[in-house]
Amino acid sequence: MLRITSVQNPHVKLALKLRNRRARQKQNRILIDGARELHRALGAGVAIVEAFICPPLCRTEDARCVAAALQQASPQCFEVSEPVFHRLAFGQRAEGVLGIAQTPLVSLDRICLPPCPLVAVLEGIEKPGNLGAVLRSADGAGLSAVLVADPRTDLFNPNTIRASLGTVFTTPVAVASAEQILAFLRQHTVAIYAARVDAPTLYTEADFRQPAAIVLGSEARGLSERWHDVGMQPIRLPMRGVADSLNVSAAAAVLFYEALRQRRSEQAQSPPNPTT
Amino acid sequence: MLRITSVQNPHVKLALKLRNRRARQKQNRILIDGARELHRALGAGVAIVEAFICPPLCRTEDARCVAAALQQASPQCFEVSEPVFHRLAFGQRAEGVLGIAQTPLVSLDRICLPPCPLVAVLEGIEKPGNLGAVLRSADGAGLSAVLVADPRTDLFNPNTIRASLGTVFTTPVAVASAEQILAFLRQHTVAIYAARVDAPTLYTEADFRQPAAIVLGSEARGLSERWHDVGMQPIRLPMRGVADSLNVSAAAAVLFYEALRQRRSEQAQSPPNPTT
Repeated sequence: MLRITSVQNPHVKLALKLRNRRARQKQNRILIDGARELHRALGAGVAIVEAFICPPLCRTEDARCVAAALQQASPQCFEVSEPVFHRLAFGQRAEGVLGIAQTPLVSLDRICLPPCPLVAVLEGIEKPGNLGAVLRSADGAGLSAVLVADPRTDLFNPNTIRASLGTVFTTPVAVASAEQILAFLRQHTVAIYAARVDAPTLYTEADFRQPAAIVLGSEARGLSERWHDVGMQPIRLPMRGVADSLNVSAAAAVLFYEALRQRRSEQAQSPPNPTT
Repeated sequence: MLRITSVQNPHVKLALKLRNRRARQKQNRILIDGARELHRALGAGVAIVEAFICPPLCRTEDARCVAAALQQASPQCFEVSEPVFHRLAFGQRAEGVLGIAQTPLVSLDRICLPPCPLVAVLEGIEKPGNLGAVLRSADGAGLSAVLVADPRTDLFNPNTIRASLGTVFTTPVAVASAEQILAFLRQHTVAIYAARVDAPTLYTEADFRQPAAIVLGSEARGLSERWHDVGMQPIRLPMRGVADSLNVSAAAAVLFYEALRQRRSEQAQSPPNPTT
């Protein structure tokens, strides 16, 4: 490995630029910090193009494993000094491994749905931390895909990657316009459940055992009128206190896990599969 | 109202200090930004001791109502210029109203539980945004109380107040040691459900219709061993993906709303109350 000891090194300077959204778009590259996030990105086949490793900071077994995997996977790998790594690392994180990857493809036509899909749609989401937390809950509940409509944040913002614990790389995820996503859902004939604070129906009355999409709006504005159309079912969470809504990532988790609960209880009721 | 046009004014300087945790503890005062948060604090009887109002920034009806209420409720009320208000306001928020309040009491002995309580316990929580989001979900699900054990953040951190949408003032909330909270729960004979990633029982198998406490641990460390004792029931969420846990505020929302779902469905099954 080539060794870098100066923050003025052009590779370091180019990596630092990737903290900025425009630079990520221009270079078509993203930064991935942290052993867990890199482990998941590598496992998902994300193409690492450059890696920075600081062996004395690889203090965990996970970090050392990822460092070894990066040396295999990355065409270019640098050993960097501690001061350089601390400059490169996001926030207070310095696990000794950092990768630059090609921006993963997120077009809608790459999404293959299973027979009875459960999909999340997030419209106009603004906060990277919320987007990441929703992705993490979608991973937990085993959703088929997360479709991000007209986002006001970047799917590969460092805060999104971190809040998702790297599940942004392992969950099938697409970014498109709300129009395109709506057409996609109709083409796949999934029931559309739109979360609205003023909906007459409680979320527990929705039938999530059928092919279904759960649609959530932005933190500030909720859902656009596009999701208030014939054939769509508005649903709401009961609100017993003084606030009229939950945080979008909390609402998403409740809805995803209610869908999983319904699907699990259906499985429990159906006869067991014959064993051979 | 006295008018303040300088950021050097001693009242302004003292208010600015309250952004800092130590200053809040020393002065026994907190800062409350935002029309919604102040509205909820006033409604909950929080004692405002000083208020700052910038009429040209009170652009919403809510803000103007709160400004009028503050003038009634606060012993001292200042009209401040826009530059001074922007200096005082938290983050990018400038709704024209800001209050200094006595720190609300949060001792455990002030918590009165209803006959069949549903309580949340949060141990060692670190991030103000997560704590605020949990409080907001507890408000939504109608929990009886939120008990905060050995927190590593401040209940009245500006980010907690904001993420809670002011429900930190309206929800019965107490801060105490884990030992004290455990004694309190035992004294009230509530079933203790401790969220652990390695629990054998799924959360949907818990019986939340009885008097119950849902116990959640810190983001990084989970629950301490104290909550792994005889008579406590460990529960987990199913994790269908690659990550082994949800964000603590997402997990809390799922658990609170499962408890509410069970309690609602019991109500739906019981005979209707006779009407007179």
